[in-house]
Amino acid sequence: MLSTMQDVPLLISRILTHGSRVHGTSQVTTWTGEGEPHRRSFAGIGERAAQLAHALRDELGVTDNDRVATLMWNNAEHVEAYFAIPSMGAVLHTLNLRLPPEQLVWIVNHAADKVVVVNGSLLPLLAPLLDKLPTLEHIVVSGPGDRSVLAGASARVHEYEELIADRPRTYDWPELDERTAASMCYTSGTTGDPKGVVYSHRSIYLHSMQVNMTQSMGLTDQDTSLVVVPQFHVNAWGLPHATFMTGVNLLMPDRFLQPAPLAEMIEGEKPTHAAAVPTIWQGLLAELTAKPRDVSSLVQVTIGGSACPPSLMKAFDELGMRVCHAWGMTETSPLGTVARPPAHAVGTEDEFAYRLTQGRFPASVEARLTGPGGERLPWDGESAGELEVRGPWIAGAYYNGPDAEPLRPADKFSEDGWLKTGDVGTISADGFLTLTDRAKDVIKSGGEWISSVELENALMSHPDVAEAAVVAVPDEKWGERPLATVVLKEGSTADFETLRAFLASDACRIAKWQLPERWSIVEAVPKTSVGKFDKKVLRRRYAEGDLDVTQL
Amino acid sequence: MLSTMQDVPLLISRILTHGSRVHGTSQVTTWTGEGEPHRRSFAGIGERAAQLAHALRDELGVTDNDRVATLMWNNAEHVEAYFAIPSMGAVLHTLNLRLPPEQLVWIVNHAADKVVVVNGSLLPLLAPLLDKLPTLEHIVVSGPGDRSVLAGASARVHEYEELIADRPRTYDWPELDERTAASMCYTSGTTGDPKGVVYSHRSIYLHSMQVNMTQSMGLTDQDTSLVVVPQFHVNAWGLPHATFMTGVNLLMPDRFLQPAPLAEMIEGEKPTHAAAVPTIWQGLLAELTAKPRDVSSLVQVTIGGSACPPSLMKAFDELGMRVCHAWGMTETSPLGTVARPPAHAVGTEDEFAYRLTQGRFPASVEARLTGPGGERLPWDGESAGELEVRGPWIAGAYYNGPDAEPLRPADKFSEDGWLKTGDVGTISADGFLTLTDRAKDVIKSGGEWISSVELENALMSHPDVAEAAVVAVPDEKWGERPLATVVLKEGSTADFETLRAFLASDACRIAKWQLPERWSIVEAVPKTSVGKFDKKVLRRRYAEGDLDVTQL
Repeated sequence: MLSTMQDVPLLISRILTHGSRVHGTSQVTTWTGEGEPHRRSFAGIGERAAQLAHALRDELGVTDNDRVATLMWNNAEHVEAYFAIPSMGAVLHTLNLRLPPEQLVWIVNHAADKVVVVNGSLLPLLAPLLDKLPTLEHIVVSGPGDRSVLAGASARVHEYEELIADRPRTYDWPELDERTAASMCYTSGTTGDPKGVVYSHRSIYLHSMQVNMTQSMGLTDQDTSLVVVPQFHVNAWGLPHATFMTGVNLLMPDRFLQPAPLAEMIEGEKPTHAAAVPTIWQGLLAELTAKPRDVSSLVQVTIGGSACPPSLMKAFDELGMRVCHAWGMTETSPLGTVARPPAHAVGTEDEFAYRLTQGRFPASVEARLTGPGGERLPWDGESAGELEVRGPWIAGAYYNGPDAEPLRPADKFSEDGWLKTGDVGTISADGFLTLTDRAKDVIKSGGEWISSVELENALMSHPDVAEAAVVAVPDEKWGERPLATVVLKEGSTADFETLRAFLASDACRIAKWQLPERWSIVEAVPKTSVGKFDKKVLRRRYAEGDLDVTQL
Repeated sequence: MLSTMQDVPLLISRILTHGSRVHGTSQVTTWTGEGEPHRRSFAGIGERAAQLAHALRDELGVTDNDRVATLMWNNAEHVEAYFAIPSMGAVLHTLNLRLPPEQLVWIVNHAADKVVVVNGSLLPLLAPLLDKLPTLEHIVVSGPGDRSVLAGASARVHEYEELIADRPRTYDWPELDERTAASMCYTSGTTGDPKGVVYSHRSIYLHSMQVNMTQSMGLTDQDTSLVVVPQFHVNAWGLPHATFMTGVNLLMPDRFLQPAPLAEMIEGEKPTHAAAVPTIWQGLLAELTAKPRDVSSLVQVTIGGSACPPSLMKAFDELGMRVCHAWGMTETSPLGTVARPPAHAVGTEDEFAYRLTQGRFPASVEARLTGPGGERLPWDGESAGELEVRGPWIAGAYYNGPDAEPLRPADKFSEDGWLKTGDVGTISADGFLTLTDRAKDVIKSGGEWISSVELENALMSHPDVAEAAVVAVPDEKWGERPLATVVLKEGSTADFETLRAFLASDACRIAKWQLPERWSIVEAVPKTSVGKFDKKVLRRRYAEGDLDVTQL
């Protein structure tokens, strides 16, 4: 029996129309580095998004499903592109400007982008790659920057402002199927080729509603959100879409992401909320310590991307900025969990522990833990397994494999369609997620899992240890066993027996069967380009006999 | 181009599974009138909903799309029925226990209900009708009440607790199409037959998300909501579903809806939020004035159903209970608007005026105004037209017309599928709705509309007038003109010229062309069963020459 409700699709054009009309006086403020910031009302964004869509269609020939890329900072024009491109039926492809050039080339070609909208300040990054980007027919340049580097480009070059000028300020947005592709974001892919996640109008609309629910970010039109997380990073965690649903003002830092200008824009523009990865906050904290400013407006800080160290959370608490942890990934749109403590813990000594978890799943995100043998594990706060998730804003595949069909690698998607997150952790009975490791770094020893991160943290709490990385190495009897690689502090004389005893002591309480037998002193732990331990280098060095290993 | 997101349907079973697991310790508290209230955790509700579904399927033979009615107060068992029936694929049909018996009979037969779950205290209402309810195969009785009145019923009679006892506490809820019918609610239908709105899993799921958004009710698991609005009244405004999404505790009054027990439960159970129609609050205010109690927990009160008088809103403000106006109807699930003042008005003298409007439309509810000639009117806060709405939780038809097809009467649905609300009002540029009249009561005079309500309020502000009702009567020149019927206060000597001059004076500022020419003194304004002015009686009496009319 079918319902008698209207069959109205969930479309991004609806969010734009609503935000630019009902919340027309809300503002997108873009930092300019000097003088007054640039201000544009939501009503203005709505008109200019319509103009941009007309220009893309009539002047550049963009039609349904064409991919239009952006290589941009967080600013008002990027917000216009966010709404115009999907609303007209095309697909927004946000390019990560931090990627190595060869990955950028690979991604643009894989997505077959027809147009790129680029900030003038980023032309030095784009120009040298143009020869390798044959699908690109149009380059639309916005904002300051030397255009001469584009001389000789085979693609047509347009000025953003000239292109949209004098076009109609309304657009008859098409009534699309809500499952139509709206935007794409590639995972940076530490192994193998980058993989594209294709969000739908439906997934973005539902995700926007979730962001605005009380137990997610919980903002209203009285708030201003400082969006430090880049718009090319999982749609800036959904903030541009979500804020147009509720009239939350946006404060966009453009290219001014250093601690000093961030502190300056907080003092000057008085945002109530901010969103960024922990490293940004670490820098801001140092800046504020060195040069105190009035940042009292900022009462809520959403931190995701990686875990927030407890010390940082406490330091921000003391500044009156309440940190709220969230977990997600490109494949989860990204909102997977938000760490709002449950009612019974609020105001108690348990509250901080809840805030340090990755957070609680909302109704639309189903979660399960899969153990080393593929078994389902209980939500008991102790059983650690790989996190798998399911829901209307969770990816079920990647864009175009070699045969142009959706790509569903078995290590990323279960047979029944759930996303394998690659994260290992526990879930408490009341649905709070605590991540302990990446699945690829966990040590699978005799059908049980040993967390490499737990061993590393324990080792690094020893006064003689500067750094420690633990990786899995093959073992005839147990399958895998942990290898501990240690960087000792200068002048330290600690030996492996001492460190192993320390792990087993009351200070660390590591179970006996988890204690490493294999140990190696290294000069430094190898790091990836973003500063994370590069464990695949350590595993390779071990396999090649390039490490001096002691067996206890 | 299709997205690569998972295709996960939005189902009520997901809300249940989430609420009973992640928010398993949240509670449904049911008032019992004496002694301790009854308390059941969300986890317990989840287990018992599974048991009820097993019983309905295995014992009563309920299959997909069968209609299962409830004739119940607000209580824990009614919440169990709310989740079990739609989650298993059947259709919940909430019966309005305030309806005249003949309407109840009509509705049960029209829906062809197979089962009714009924509170024992309501058996005296149901039993006399059973002979006229041939589709009813099973009666499931819950709670106290004399069962002997069911002797001789042809339907099988079951005890709720016995029926569900010893059945499995989990249920493998089916993966339904999200557009499947979930529940039905009939409009009480002041004219013509009652009409059934059939909500879908999708519409209820999306509506629940909206209720939990910051600018709607904005509750968290630290809140307890006193749900006075009946569960048979548009799904209790969506609260049972919405609260299971976020863990908000429910306080259910059962049959204790009188001011004294309501005051007692507020003092005893300390809800932070409550939802009801204005008359309930008027009674509660009188009770609290007569017998003060500690009701300081209750900081937010959602009022809908009809407009809240400014005096009542102010009185509640003084008690520390902040009234939030909302507008909706059975056809809108019901959330259409919520009157949260915009950021620029908060803390200013404009704030109260915004709170008195019906409120602002959320992103998912599109609105337009249609004027007397069918033209679209601007959102300027002045142009009054009939409100039409569109959205994923707005009805597009009614259940089964005479040919068993969806029913789309032209006075309720536009040709392009929008719902004609029958309400007349204005919308401000920033999307705030102010209702001024019902479309059927508005006076269509020479292509312009005159609000009957505005004239009535003006007349009733005159010191000599006890009551006044204004209705449209046919007029050769203008199509329709207003007829003012007036009840004078005892001893009053005011004449029609005086009243007419009063309307035109600075006290009322009614435009000259809107002033009534036809006047009549009546002894009392006829009223409907719920106490509203019964204008169709007045129109009939005028047509039949039964009123003594003076033409000025």
